[in-house]
Amino acid sequence: MPDTGSGSALHTASPLSATPRTTHRRLREQGRSSRAELFAVLRAGLIGHLGVPTDQGLMVIPTVYGFDDQQAYVHGSVASRSLAADADVCLTVTIVDGLVLARSVFEHAVNYRSAMIYAPPRILDDPAEKLAGLRLLSEHLAPGQWDYTRQPSRKELAATRLLALSLAEASVKVRSGPPTDADSPDAALGLWAGELPLDSRWLQPVPDPDLPAGQVAPLHIQSRGGMQVHR
Amino acid sequence: MPDTGSGSALHTASPLSATPRTTHRRLREQGRSSRAELFAVLRAGLIGHLGVPTDQGLMVIPTVYGFDDQQAYVHGSVASRSLAADADVCLTVTIVDGLVLARSVFEHAVNYRSAMIYAPPRILDDPAEKLAGLRLLSEHLAPGQWDYTRQPSRKELAATRLLALSLAEASVKVRSGPPTDADSPDAALGLWAGELPLDSRWLQPVPDPDLPAGQVAPLHIQSRGGMQVHR
Repeated sequence: MPDTGSGSALHTASPLSATPRTTHRRLREQGRSSRAELFAVLRAGLIGHLGVPTDQGLMVIPTVYGFDDQQAYVHGSVASRSLAADADVCLTVTIVDGLVLARSVFEHAVNYRSAMIYAPPRILDDPAEKLAGLRLLSEHLAPGQWDYTRQPSRKELAATRLLALSLAEASVKVRSGPPTDADSPDAALGLWAGELPLDSRWLQPVPDPDLPAGQVAPLHIQSRGGMQVHR
Repeated sequence: MPDTGSGSALHTASPLSATPRTTHRRLREQGRSSRAELFAVLRAGLIGHLGVPTDQGLMVIPTVYGFDDQQAYVHGSVASRSLAADADVCLTVTIVDGLVLARSVFEHAVNYRSAMIYAPPRILDDPAEKLAGLRLLSEHLAPGQWDYTRQPSRKELAATRLLALSLAEASVKVRSGPPTDADSPDAALGLWAGELPLDSRWLQPVPDPDLPAGQVAPLHIQSRGGMQVHR
């Protein structure tokens, strides 16, 4: 069972929204309904896929993200093509935990954790809010780098378009565990069945070839080598 | 530099489409334009994210996929909510290869390989074509399982909705290598910079607890343990 978080804060114990599109119609047993589970997926994920309506049709763009209790933050530049301000976007964060190998092709599945967020994109204008959003994004991707590296200049900040997405309307799905056909007639086939787990880890950091020889990575980078990506 | 494939077959050497939405406007240096590179990303990827317009707005759904020279195949059930047959969907397959840790927050990036496919979804009706599509999907996810496990019955096949997406309109983006700020004024900061690569591997298979003790996984599953996921 993947860690989908337990959470103690009040806001995480509150139920997720139940609008028509976040109400699980298929595979209800995979649906999760607490905000703690939403935050667990957002913490464990690395990148998301942002669906945006454009005047050339729908685009799904891979993007880094950050989040706080209320909002997710994504780079707005990815959605710079005629983003319709009044139309919702959808940000989906997925972690694949492994394959579910059943006794029939039909029962094969994927073990995964996934969060889908629906929101109208709000373009951040206030420099302070923008800076705070960028910091969340940076710290989600590479904790420690915000304080270690040069922070955005006023010019860079102005050149960065950041979108905030409310976390009010979201849904979470999780599938874990073995295949479910052990008590089906297919069990008589005598075939092997089970899970093939997947593990993603950070490797040791690779220095920029232009660095002076022997310059070691700071501890917050070094210590990540060998660690799981989706914790 | 990630392996983006070289390809010798004629169809892989032909250029990708150049419609407005597949023409790279931002970060042109990351754009790739041969079909060989499209197939390299589709081969290396595990799951995709399918953007579908629905009557409740846009949804981005994680989904397994398969493909041949002409089409990608995805389960249609994921898009069963009021899929508009005349509107294109977008299937995006992304592999994250690592983080690009620069000397400033602004220059941070992600090393990745990504393919975006735009197509009107075609619902497969012909059982033979459906079976062939399902086989491609199954073999992409878990090679060897199609022949090892029980193949779909007529009833299961009828219950499975499969969508084919033409690969005619697609774009590929790849970013690899170190940060690009070694020759900027930020180099004088003396900070460490480089890449933090990410490695995803299959672990050893975990038997279904309901299997008889000692039943070993077939070779095509066993041999996958320890292998890279995104080759």
